[in-house]
Amino acid sequence: MDRLSLNIATTKKWNLAEAVEGAVRAGLPSVGLWRDRVHELGLDRAAKLVRDAGLRVSSLCRGGFLTATSPEGIREALDDNRAALDEAAALGTDALVMVVGGLPEGSVDLAGARQRVAERIAELVPRARERGVRIVLEPLHPMYAADRAVISTLEQALDLAAPHTAEEVAVVVDTFHVFWDPALPRAIERAGREGRIASYQVCDFNLPIAADALLSRGMMGDGVVDFAAITRMIAETGYSGDVEVEIFNAEIWDSPGDSVLATMTERYRELVLPHLG
Amino acid sequence: MDRLSLNIATTKKWNLAEAVEGAVRAGLPSVGLWRDRVHELGLDRAAKLVRDAGLRVSSLCRGGFLTATSPEGIREALDDNRAALDEAAALGTDALVMVVGGLPEGSVDLAGARQRVAERIAELVPRARERGVRIVLEPLHPMYAADRAVISTLEQALDLAAPHTAEEVAVVVDTFHVFWDPALPRAIERAGREGRIASYQVCDFNLPIAADALLSRGMMGDGVVDFAAITRMIAETGYSGDVEVEIFNAEIWDSPGDSVLATMTERYRELVLPHLG
Repeated sequence: MDRLSLNIATTKKWNLAEAVEGAVRAGLPSVGLWRDRVHELGLDRAAKLVRDAGLRVSSLCRGGFLTATSPEGIREALDDNRAALDEAAALGTDALVMVVGGLPEGSVDLAGARQRVAERIAELVPRARERGVRIVLEPLHPMYAADRAVISTLEQALDLAAPHTAEEVAVVVDTFHVFWDPALPRAIERAGREGRIASYQVCDFNLPIAADALLSRGMMGDGVVDFAAITRMIAETGYSGDVEVEIFNAEIWDSPGDSVLATMTERYRELVLPHLG
Repeated sequence: MDRLSLNIATTKKWNLAEAVEGAVRAGLPSVGLWRDRVHELGLDRAAKLVRDAGLRVSSLCRGGFLTATSPEGIREALDDNRAALDEAAALGTDALVMVVGGLPEGSVDLAGARQRVAERIAELVPRARERGVRIVLEPLHPMYAADRAVISTLEQALDLAAPHTAEEVAVVVDTFHVFWDPALPRAIERAGREGRIASYQVCDFNLPIAADALLSRGMMGDGVVDFAAITRMIAETGYSGDVEVEIFNAEIWDSPGDSVLATMTERYRELVLPHLG
């Protein structure tokens, strides 16, 4: 249990204080935070709340949305991401998770959007270095390639990270997003070798895909992800950080938070922990 | 227009005779057939119908569903695919498209399912060679990895084809399934170099994803696929075969077939043909 982290998007009805209390009640050592919940409370109070509760912050979600083409869109994205890097530092985490954004309205130029992401990352790196916070690139499932994140595979995330040091740009491996990838063993091995695994997130892939495709994430064991296989790949890299549970799922959001944490802990013990090494 | 083929799944309400007549009326030189429509009419009559109409058969859909674990399941799959290879030969096409199947009920062993696909392909190759029909592996979009096809990228399809000659095992590039792939330029170049591109299928990726995810395929120009970029990659390999339009989409299925063919021809001329070289 000393590596299990609640990403607070999993208990969406709880505000930050409630999520922190819930995590403490469940005996968890760590939480993954979202900026909207932090802003609700105010950055300083949020940081103090988590610190006083004795919890680690495994990551901050999220920066990103870097694919704008207009000068104003680019400036806004850079400003917002620099603020997010500052917030991560204030909250005591070195991981700012980035959902990099999809195609601008009306565009089909995926290659161009990917190129702009590379350029924006390079512009953000100096602030990341200054704050001691890593830009953590999240490859999203290819079904979100056009509208959420033009980074679609772990290999691609590593290629985008390659011009920068592992302290500056890293990656998150989220089972929901990458379980399907036949090149996953090779990509995880590379991520480990390069020292770039900043976070391991576990979440199942439910079928059928939810009518709102964003909500197809499921509790471990409810879907089609092979947690044993992927967790062993992660363990073999020597990754020793937190394992974050991040689930967007209407049914889970409607359930009482404490019971979600109980199920999550049980499934983690059964499906993930035995393979963590 | 001399390379445009109607995959008859696009005009789902038409039976085979109606689809053949519709294709002829629209001035198309080629059709992609489905086994269920062929069986309705009878193999010999179907073959004669298409031949007498002066149409090419660009491909037969579909073989596959090769991931069974039980001896009976394996035998049934092999029998059915051998029959499909015979049918393809009788229909005068050298391309049997394979949707290889997903995980067996209750299983999450994706690596195991992929291994079984490799084994079944090897068992089918002798019949394919005998009939002069290629086993054409179709990588499906990763959102179908668990329930439709465990082949998720073009690179993976090429790796599965690699133990066999290009006359025995080839691939189809379907824009809907592969447009998101950051490794696509490299994979298409490889497919061309190996002589393994048996079919190029064009179809858009509509957003938001349809409630039934199988029906998110869209008319070219209605979604987020960059047809110019992908068609140029295909053209650069020297591919000179048919370009098949295969769309599963409730709204298109509800439209009159002739108007679907008119739109399809217009969009092909506008979005695909200028880049075919």
